[in-house]
Amino acid sequence: MPALPPSLVQQLSERFGKRFSTAGSVRAHHGHDESHFPDALPDGVVWPHSTAEVVEIVNLCRAHRVPLIPFGVGSSLEGHILATQGGISLDMSEMNQVLAIHGEDMDAVVQPGVTRKALNAALHGTGLFFPIDPGADASLGGMTATRASGTNAVRYGTMRENVMALEVVLADGRVIRTGGRSRKSSAGYDLTRLFVGSEGTLGVLTEVTVRLHPLPEAISGATCAFPDVGSAVQTVIQTIQLGIPVARIELLDTLTVQAVNRYSKTALRESPMLFFEFHGSPGSVEEQACTVQDIARDNGGQDFEWATRPEERTRLWQARHDVLYASLALQPGSRGVTTDVCVPISRLAEAIASTQAAIAESGLLAPIVGHVGDGNFHVVILTTPDDPDQVRRAEALGRRIVECALALDGTCTGEHGIGIGKQDFLRAEHGEAVTVMASLKAALDPLNLLNPGKVLAPALKAQPTR
Amino acid sequence: MPALPPSLVQQLSERFGKRFSTAGSVRAHHGHDESHFPDALPDGVVWPHSTAEVVEIVNLCRAHRVPLIPFGVGSSLEGHILATQGGISLDMSEMNQVLAIHGEDMDAVVQPGVTRKALNAALHGTGLFFPIDPGADASLGGMTATRASGTNAVRYGTMRENVMALEVVLADGRVIRTGGRSRKSSAGYDLTRLFVGSEGTLGVLTEVTVRLHPLPEAISGATCAFPDVGSAVQTVIQTIQLGIPVARIELLDTLTVQAVNRYSKTALRESPMLFFEFHGSPGSVEEQACTVQDIARDNGGQDFEWATRPEERTRLWQARHDVLYASLALQPGSRGVTTDVCVPISRLAEAIASTQAAIAESGLLAPIVGHVGDGNFHVVILTTPDDPDQVRRAEALGRRIVECALALDGTCTGEHGIGIGKQDFLRAEHGEAVTVMASLKAALDPLNLLNPGKVLAPALKAQPTR
Repeated sequence: MPALPPSLVQQLSERFGKRFSTAGSVRAHHGHDESHFPDALPDGVVWPHSTAEVVEIVNLCRAHRVPLIPFGVGSSLEGHILATQGGISLDMSEMNQVLAIHGEDMDAVVQPGVTRKALNAALHGTGLFFPIDPGADASLGGMTATRASGTNAVRYGTMRENVMALEVVLADGRVIRTGGRSRKSSAGYDLTRLFVGSEGTLGVLTEVTVRLHPLPEAISGATCAFPDVGSAVQTVIQTIQLGIPVARIELLDTLTVQAVNRYSKTALRESPMLFFEFHGSPGSVEEQACTVQDIARDNGGQDFEWATRPEERTRLWQARHDVLYASLALQPGSRGVTTDVCVPISRLAEAIASTQAAIAESGLLAPIVGHVGDGNFHVVILTTPDDPDQVRRAEALGRRIVECALALDGTCTGEHGIGIGKQDFLRAEHGEAVTVMASLKAALDPLNLLNPGKVLAPALKAQPTR
Repeated sequence: MPALPPSLVQQLSERFGKRFSTAGSVRAHHGHDESHFPDALPDGVVWPHSTAEVVEIVNLCRAHRVPLIPFGVGSSLEGHILATQGGISLDMSEMNQVLAIHGEDMDAVVQPGVTRKALNAALHGTGLFFPIDPGADASLGGMTATRASGTNAVRYGTMRENVMALEVVLADGRVIRTGGRSRKSSAGYDLTRLFVGSEGTLGVLTEVTVRLHPLPEAISGATCAFPDVGSAVQTVIQTIQLGIPVARIELLDTLTVQAVNRYSKTALRESPMLFFEFHGSPGSVEEQACTVQDIARDNGGQDFEWATRPEERTRLWQARHDVLYASLALQPGSRGVTTDVCVPISRLAEAIASTQAAIAESGLLAPIVGHVGDGNFHVVILTTPDDPDQVRRAEALGRRIVECALALDGTCTGEHGIGIGKQDFLRAEHGEAVTVMASLKAALDPLNLLNPGKVLAPALKAQPTR
């Protein structure tokens, strides 16, 4: 890995003082995310405070042909922020101002370092909230860059549906604004959606306008146990088909429920379970919940239990959010190889059955948990990091799960993104379209300096156009 | 305008027989849309039957450097399909097969020539429907290309939210597939959204996968008169802010109501009105309607009238869809210069007030009607085609309305698109971002043969990247 050119170090030090660092501990902190990939440290880290400063940094890096990697809170799961080609980590955490809250229009304009919890804290008292919840308290810039979603996307959509406008610093230092605050527009190419999910490879996000939603008047939660995964999934399919605007609908397989019971001291029946949440007026919430209860019962659901009181619901969803830690605790000292796939909902039962068969064959412990209202599920494959054979088998199992999903008309990632972990699958899923992605990358970042080697395989070249 | 190279004519004739035509009447039919722009005839028209045939045509046109203009049903409103630089009109109407309906997944795969009504006819008996309704029975290819929406986008979204996947023939003849049938994905750049709204300038759409929705169990409609536009708009804002999932919420100004009463023999109170439609379970529909009735009453709404029976509702929405013809009938022999803007909902009252002031000052007749739940409204400026001064004044008024919307943080088009009519405003709205759009166009269509001169001003060049 090439070290930074001394003149760049000097320029960044002079310009940013203590906001530029090459200290080992700082680089180490910016050299790993929540994935199992080996650390890859940047050569330096800089903390900009404004769009103008981002432009300066982009221009300096370009002048020295040094890669630049935008960094949020480091909670990504496919190696997005690893400095695999060295360069500067652009830590956006100090651009953390909520710039505007437009209550009547139900939108907010934020700097990219604002986290989802910080935004919701700022919204306190407005009657509005920002629903997207990937579990981690990720930054909104990072969530935009990975097209994040999470438990309640089934009702509120993903970052794709909830980002309205962006300010972006391009690789050549120009600043553009995309989209706008109108609820819809047919004005030109949809640049906003192009940057949402581009994982820092097409530009640096310096401002994000997100859609807000009214806090529901009433919220109700419920859990229900099922004899098998298939009957739980049938319940999901029928619920979605009836157009019931369920806010959350999460599947936990038996192993996950066992892990949760141990870790979170719950007493759930140890069989496949669905966790539900309903949002709306009191009447609508009751109606939704009763309809879903009927559907669940028709499918063999048992122990349908309500969680109407806020503290019960909080406990339930805390247990859900702690599934990763609960899973890791099943095998002390283990690390998780996490995968994330999404299939059309009609193929979900089949996808999970194939996944369970593959897990059984592997001999590994691998709980399944999913945002099943969207057909999206995760597998946490437990490995002992100092057992290279086990890690290899875990990676092989992860690949097999993705191959199953692709064979069922699914996608290789529902919400975690491509990063460095899924580039081969991106090609398998999208074929020739990947070369079009490479053409767009070449058009917007011809020197390949913005988070190089992510999304698109380093060897992939834009197709020459005739 | 250059005629077609004789060798191209010969090749197309030999290959496509009667499915290629240079007859005057055929060219005339393909040389105008529903806009007021002067006709611009293509030099020939061809009707492909398959993606492979589209590839052949694209390759032939490229070999001869002849422009190619995809054509749906010709209902666009900003000159999208005018052959302003000559070339071949690619009429997709015979690629009109519904290829698959996936009931459990609630999606359908169609060829681009399928119209929205044809798709809904094919869905009969499935319990599902395709909600996007721009008024005209447009083709799904055309609706995708213009990012269309219409009356019930406030609940169901626009084509942006409802197109899941595309097959596209690129300018160089390659065929790509974008997106997929999973409900969400983080796999790579969002090419689907890049083609949605690209108005035929980036590729030819040959297959569209759209999201379907459950037919609502119950539907109810209502009308309500208001003392002024401001109080109607306040009703809209409060309805949206409460999170009421209203399916349609349309504003008609007094002049529009007068036109409707005359044309559709209705007896509506001649004051600003809102038309509502509610979808859901019987209980939810009643609850929504009662809440909205309360909000309307608080804002001075009068004559809140229900339309629960299907025939009443049909009559109501037919009257709404006939607003264009009703408006034109206000001034016999007139033609409409139509404009379409969208603003953040908090600015809607102001936008409409400025628009009304501008109309009054112009001395022209110009009814206002809008999909106000989204902040989107249209003005039909009536002109006598043989009065060039009046047409000039109408165009000036149209520009002023857009300028008002842009000054209020709005967009120059909510749903009609840019075409040839709004290129200057695209620049005014998006600034430097328009050069990025030009870079993408240059990357995907370097010879500028796909619907050239649309969206981006012909003089606009991609910014050289460093």
